[in-house]
Amino acid sequence: MAPAPTRSDCEALDQADPLAPYRGEFVVDDDALIYFDGNSLGRLPKATVTRLQRLLADEWGGRLVRSWRETWLAMPVRVGDLIGTGLLGAEAGETVVGDNTTVSLYKAVSAALDARPGRRTVVIERDNFPTDRYLMESLARQRGLVIRWVDAGTSQGLTVDDLAGVVDDSVAVTLLSHVDYRSAAILDLGAMTTLVHESGALMVWDLCHSVGSVPMQLDRAGVDIAVGCTYKYLNGGPGAPAFTYVNRARQDELAQPIWGWWGRADMFDMAEGYQPYPDIRAWLTGTPGIMSLAGVETGVEMVCRAGIQEIRRKSTALSALAIELYDEWLAGRGVGLASPRDPHRRGSHVTVTHPGAVRLTDELAAKGVVPDFRRPDGIRIGLAPLTTRFVDVYDGLVVLRDLLG
Amino acid sequence: MAPAPTRSDCEALDQADPLAPYRGEFVVDDDALIYFDGNSLGRLPKATVTRLQRLLADEWGGRLVRSWRETWLAMPVRVGDLIGTGLLGAEAGETVVGDNTTVSLYKAVSAALDARPGRRTVVIERDNFPTDRYLMESLARQRGLVIRWVDAGTSQGLTVDDLAGVVDDSVAVTLLSHVDYRSAAILDLGAMTTLVHESGALMVWDLCHSVGSVPMQLDRAGVDIAVGCTYKYLNGGPGAPAFTYVNRARQDELAQPIWGWWGRADMFDMAEGYQPYPDIRAWLTGTPGIMSLAGVETGVEMVCRAGIQEIRRKSTALSALAIELYDEWLAGRGVGLASPRDPHRRGSHVTVTHPGAVRLTDELAAKGVVPDFRRPDGIRIGLAPLTTRFVDVYDGLVVLRDLLG
Repeated sequence: MAPAPTRSDCEALDQADPLAPYRGEFVVDDDALIYFDGNSLGRLPKATVTRLQRLLADEWGGRLVRSWRETWLAMPVRVGDLIGTGLLGAEAGETVVGDNTTVSLYKAVSAALDARPGRRTVVIERDNFPTDRYLMESLARQRGLVIRWVDAGTSQGLTVDDLAGVVDDSVAVTLLSHVDYRSAAILDLGAMTTLVHESGALMVWDLCHSVGSVPMQLDRAGVDIAVGCTYKYLNGGPGAPAFTYVNRARQDELAQPIWGWWGRADMFDMAEGYQPYPDIRAWLTGTPGIMSLAGVETGVEMVCRAGIQEIRRKSTALSALAIELYDEWLAGRGVGLASPRDPHRRGSHVTVTHPGAVRLTDELAAKGVVPDFRRPDGIRIGLAPLTTRFVDVYDGLVVLRDLLG
Repeated sequence: MAPAPTRSDCEALDQADPLAPYRGEFVVDDDALIYFDGNSLGRLPKATVTRLQRLLADEWGGRLVRSWRETWLAMPVRVGDLIGTGLLGAEAGETVVGDNTTVSLYKAVSAALDARPGRRTVVIERDNFPTDRYLMESLARQRGLVIRWVDAGTSQGLTVDDLAGVVDDSVAVTLLSHVDYRSAAILDLGAMTTLVHESGALMVWDLCHSVGSVPMQLDRAGVDIAVGCTYKYLNGGPGAPAFTYVNRARQDELAQPIWGWWGRADMFDMAEGYQPYPDIRAWLTGTPGIMSLAGVETGVEMVCRAGIQEIRRKSTALSALAIELYDEWLAGRGVGLASPRDPHRRGSHVTVTHPGAVRLTDELAAKGVVPDFRRPDGIRIGLAPLTTRFVDVYDGLVVLRDLLG
């Protein structure tokens, strides 16, 4: 095993990093803060401050209601297309931004269930993010469905074989997270989508922990529906709305269940009888939060400008560094590694485990290192390639090492 | 009939108006603009500009993810209570702010339907706002329900007798708007709620066009659920989230259908199996848009400080003035009055009709007067008591009068 990197090595990595200048495009008050939670709430882009000032002064304050037609009405599709074409491997017209992740997933799974009326089983991973599990429970209860929980065989994440063991022709919908919110395991989106389709079921992907850090090709993989979060790697701001992708080939077949005026063809006709827009706008419900949408737009523009391939390259280097330092300093001292070692199977965070993880997370925060605690015993180190430096990884893990005594 | 007020009379009314100073608390770039659309998008409070600057700089930019526990997590209930106790006649713990109006109404009507499983009919007014009609259609289709459309007998709005003709023991839920979005007719919230309850049905009120301009006493009336908009008279900003009121006496009985992590008891436990919070938070789904919620908070604070009784008093005076000037200048020139003359039955806007309403609305806008066109032939004059002056009503209707040639 090569010797672990020194702090000088990390400084050299930062010097050579083509993405390093992006940190300067964010508001960073406290340069000493080591922020390992950019995958929970991404930092504030300076462009968002400027954009919101303009939104307040010119659009809301100045043009008032006229801004709807002048700019705001188009935002759900405009920002959706930015995400879809820049980050999802989608064409224009397949992605829209509106409701929160929970409501968006509810609509997605409902639509998929309606398209497979004879089937009574849904598949979801037992370790999926809570909101995914809970909304599946709500739909199962409403519709009298059976939930088939699938478990990963190992800590390396769910495999195609794991999934093959539970998908059959009784399954209507499978809902999986592309990147696991605790382990960072990347699931094989292409092969799993194909497998699910072979049984005649539909595939809904939760992209919350991958979008903006892991490249993907939803059109090529034939994904049916996907939903993702904009306040993590996309830096959209607290509670910024989710996006929904619907494969163009499925748009006629899939109808979301919450009919409102924003999904109604010719919405300002306010006519009798619901008729959905014959395009992705049919996935809108009511009025989206424009201030949050504006933050998504500026955040996504920056991610697209940096380039998802370059982001992925740095992300992999950051997480590899974290694992090298884990091996050097933490392994064998009561700390475990809960993330895959194979970089191709690992997203943009690294989770280490410790029986005292709650206490350690608090102690880290008190020393200016902010990770996330994840039950039951995980310290999640989020690595946001546009703002996390290699020296941050080094310095943050020094603090954790020293806390272990 | 007394002579119509002169412009000097209107100036005197503004001089004597105790709410006049509130206009100075809003961003008003163009003092000559006559804005009759504060009931579509309320103006921007200066306090919101300050609040959002702090939110960006200190809370998002500075404290980052730590702001969730420090301030943001509590906002849906904190802002809800502000609305509930200040404007709805509710106690603390009955109101929460989160999803948009459409999604909130979907949850409300779903919950009410689940609580009346044997009944297959829903009642809604044919002239209700489109999103209310469309979501009722979506729920009727999903659940195989019959929609019973009710029509107002006259242009003065739906009466208790009109409603009595359609509510019987087959009805599960009745959904009505407290103030009609076109005519401004105020429905008798107390008597209609009682009538609906007498048949064993549940009552859902849409308060979008009344909250912040018409006082109400939801607890006293025994209303089951109510949903309302925050971007009109509450000045919360474009697409700010809706609030949901659930009567405490019904909270055990009524369960909303979209289960997500924000509604889960002890949400950060992320435990298996959904268990709703044993309080109003059970009505949350996923992460709400915090920037929009902050705008709601500052907007509502100002409305509460001004006082809903004082707002109502001025609102009635403004709309009475508009009707006097209609009588003097517009009646008999192809213009009709689509709003009730009885001030007790009229909300805070006045709609006049004309066959050329589309053209007239555009021509008004070109001359710096911004009302809203409402199908089929309505020009809606929104009167926002905190920002609309008596001289605005006078000057705006002068422009309309002169356009009639």
